[in-house]
Amino acid sequence: MPLDLTASSIDLTRAICDIDSVIDNEGPLADLIEQSVVGLDHLEVQRFGDTIVARTNLGRAQRVVIAGHIDTVPLNGNLTSRFETLDGVDYLWGRGTVDMKAGVAVQLKLAAELSEPIVDVTWIWYDHEEVSEAKNGLNRLSQSNPELLKGDFAILGEPTRSEIEGGCNGNLRAEIRTRGLRAHSARAWVGDNAIHKAAPILDLLAAYEPRTVEVDGLEYREGLNAVGITGGVAGNVIPDECMVHINYRFAPSRSGDEAIAHMHELFGELGEIEIVDLAVGARPGLDAPIAQGFVAAVGGVPMPKYGWTDVARFSRLGVPAVNYGPGDPLKAHADDERVALQQITDCENGLRAWLTATD
Amino acid sequence: MPLDLTASSIDLTRAICDIDSVIDNEGPLADLIEQSVVGLDHLEVQRFGDTIVARTNLGRAQRVVIAGHIDTVPLNGNLTSRFETLDGVDYLWGRGTVDMKAGVAVQLKLAAELSEPIVDVTWIWYDHEEVSEAKNGLNRLSQSNPELLKGDFAILGEPTRSEIEGGCNGNLRAEIRTRGLRAHSARAWVGDNAIHKAAPILDLLAAYEPRTVEVDGLEYREGLNAVGITGGVAGNVIPDECMVHINYRFAPSRSGDEAIAHMHELFGELGEIEIVDLAVGARPGLDAPIAQGFVAAVGGVPMPKYGWTDVARFSRLGVPAVNYGPGDPLKAHADDERVALQQITDCENGLRAWLTATD
Repeated sequence: MPLDLTASSIDLTRAICDIDSVIDNEGPLADLIEQSVVGLDHLEVQRFGDTIVARTNLGRAQRVVIAGHIDTVPLNGNLTSRFETLDGVDYLWGRGTVDMKAGVAVQLKLAAELSEPIVDVTWIWYDHEEVSEAKNGLNRLSQSNPELLKGDFAILGEPTRSEIEGGCNGNLRAEIRTRGLRAHSARAWVGDNAIHKAAPILDLLAAYEPRTVEVDGLEYREGLNAVGITGGVAGNVIPDECMVHINYRFAPSRSGDEAIAHMHELFGELGEIEIVDLAVGARPGLDAPIAQGFVAAVGGVPMPKYGWTDVARFSRLGVPAVNYGPGDPLKAHADDERVALQQITDCENGLRAWLTATD
Repeated sequence: MPLDLTASSIDLTRAICDIDSVIDNEGPLADLIEQSVVGLDHLEVQRFGDTIVARTNLGRAQRVVIAGHIDTVPLNGNLTSRFETLDGVDYLWGRGTVDMKAGVAVQLKLAAELSEPIVDVTWIWYDHEEVSEAKNGLNRLSQSNPELLKGDFAILGEPTRSEIEGGCNGNLRAEIRTRGLRAHSARAWVGDNAIHKAAPILDLLAAYEPRTVEVDGLEYREGLNAVGITGGVAGNVIPDECMVHINYRFAPSRSGDEAIAHMHELFGELGEIEIVDLAVGARPGLDAPIAQGFVAAVGGVPMPKYGWTDVARFSRLGVPAVNYGPGDPLKAHADDERVALQQITDCENGLRAWLTATD
C-alpha cells in the first residue's frame, strides 16, 4: 500500500519511521516512495538504485533541488516510534525521527501537494548517506547524472531545528611527522628525540587563533586541532618518530589548495606533512535573490553549518545550498532520538510559503 | 664430566658457551658448575635452584663478592662457538661469548685456582638474569639469603671490555597526563584540547639540560626523555586526554624519593603524574680503599655505567659494586656476538693480580 501523502507531515513522519530503512535496507522504503509519487501527473519520476528523483517541468525561470536521505543508522531498541511529551514539548520519539525522516516526510507531502510551485523543483530521496562516499546515493547520482543535481539553489533536509544553516566548513586532516634517531635511553645523547621535536607543533596549535570568516553574510568559525598524537618505541628507547594528527576546519571561502597551503605555511618548517583527507566546504549562497526569498519566507536568522554535509556536493557543482530540516542535530544517532512536532510543522510551512509565494 | 677448570680461560669460555643455557634451561650448566667446584677444599659450596654460591672462609679482614649470570638470550644460529679473526683481532664468536660466559669462565678458573686470595671471596653464578625481576637468581638470593651477598665490595662480570664501569644510574618512568573535554572537532570551541595542553611538557623536555654529576670520582650523565606519547579519540573528536611517557635516568647520588620529587618539581603544574617504574642507581664505591686497590691492580681509568645492572642489588644492601668483564656491551644479544680473546685474558689477569697482591 503506497504512503498516504495527504496525511499530516507528522503522521507521515511516523509512518515512514516505522518502515525499517537501516543502511543497506533502503529498498522497501524506496519502493513505497516510488509507488507514492509515480502516479502524480506533475512529477517526472526516475529511479537509480534506491534513489528516487521526482521533477516538475513547468518551464519556470528557476529550479531548486530539495533532497533528503532515507537511510538511518542501526536501531537500538528505538522503534517502533511513539509520541511523548517532555517538559511541555510534544515529540515523536524513535530512530530516524531526527536524521532525517521528518525532513523526508515534509518533502514527500509537499512534492505531492504542490503541483504548481513558483519554481521548478527537483525532489531527491537517496540512500546510503550514513556510510561511505562510494555508496552515497547523492554522490553516485552526481557522477552518473550530474544534470539532475543542477539548479539555482538547493536545500538539504538535514536536521537544523527548522532553521536555515548555510553551506558548511571544509575539512582537512593531515599527519605531521617529526624524525629523530633511536638510541638506548640510558645513553640518550647518542640519539635524537622525535617526540621532543613535536614541541613547537603543539606550541603552535595551542597558540593558534582560528579565524572567523564572513561568507555570503554568515560567520564561519574555523578550527585547527590536534586530534591525535603517537610516538615511542619502548620504555628504554629514544623515539625516532612522532606523528601529530591535525584536523583543520576551514571556511567555505577557502579552496582546498589554499587550505593545504596554510598547513605548509604553519608546519612546513616543523615536520613532514601528509594530507590524509580533504573535503572543501560549501558557500551558503545566501546572497542570491532566490535564497533571500527563501530566507524571507522561512523567517529567522540563517546560521552557518560547521560540520561537513552533502550540501558540499551541490556546491561542487556550482549550486548554492543550505541545510534546513526539523530536529535537533545533537539528537541525531542518539538512542533517545526524538523530533519536536512543532519543528516538523514549521518546516512544512516554511517550505510551502516559499514555494508558493506570490508577492 | 665436570669442567676442566685448569684449562685456559679462553678454552673454558668456549666449553661453557657450547653448553646451551638459554633462559629457563640453566640446569645442565648449573649442574656442571656445581660438580666442578664442589670438591675444592677451599670453597664452601651451596646451591639455590640453579644459582651456585662458592665461598672461601679464610678469616680475611675483608670479603668481596664476584658474580656472573649463566643464562643467555635465545640462540639465533650462533652456536656452536668458533674462533675467528677480524681486522687482526682474534675473537671467539657465538651466543653468550659476551653476555656473559667469558666473565663466568674467568671467575670459575680463578675460583678454582686461588685457594688463598688476600680477601675472602664469595663467588656467585646465577640464573635468569635476562628475564624478569621475579625470576632473577641474584634477586631471589638477595631475598632468601641476603647475608650471602654481603661484603666490602662486589664485582659483577657484565661485559665492559674488561674496563671498570662503576655503579649505575637510577631509572624512573612516569606517565604525565593532561585532561580536557571531548567535543566534535567541527565545534572545537565547545571542547578543551588535551593534546594542546601537552605543549609545555614537550617544551620543558626539549629545553631540559640534564646534569652531569660526579659520584665517588665518576661522572654520571643524567637523561630526561619522552619515550612515548599517546592521545586522541577519532579524527573528528577533540581529545580529552594526552599521556606523555617519561624516562628519567638519574645519578646514583640521587635517591628514589629525590627522583620522584624532581618529577613533581618539573611537571607538577603541567599534568597528573604517575610513577610507573623506579629503580634507584648504585654508587660505584670507588673511593673505598679496597676499591682503589682493585683499580690499581686492574689499571685503566674507571668509567661510569649508564644502564641499570644487577650491581644495584648490591648497592641496595650497602655493598659498593662495579661491572668488570670481557666483551663489548654493544655485541650483547647481537646475532654476531663475539668476544675479543685478549679481553678474556686481561680480565683474568686483572682479577688475579688484585686477589693475590702482596704489597
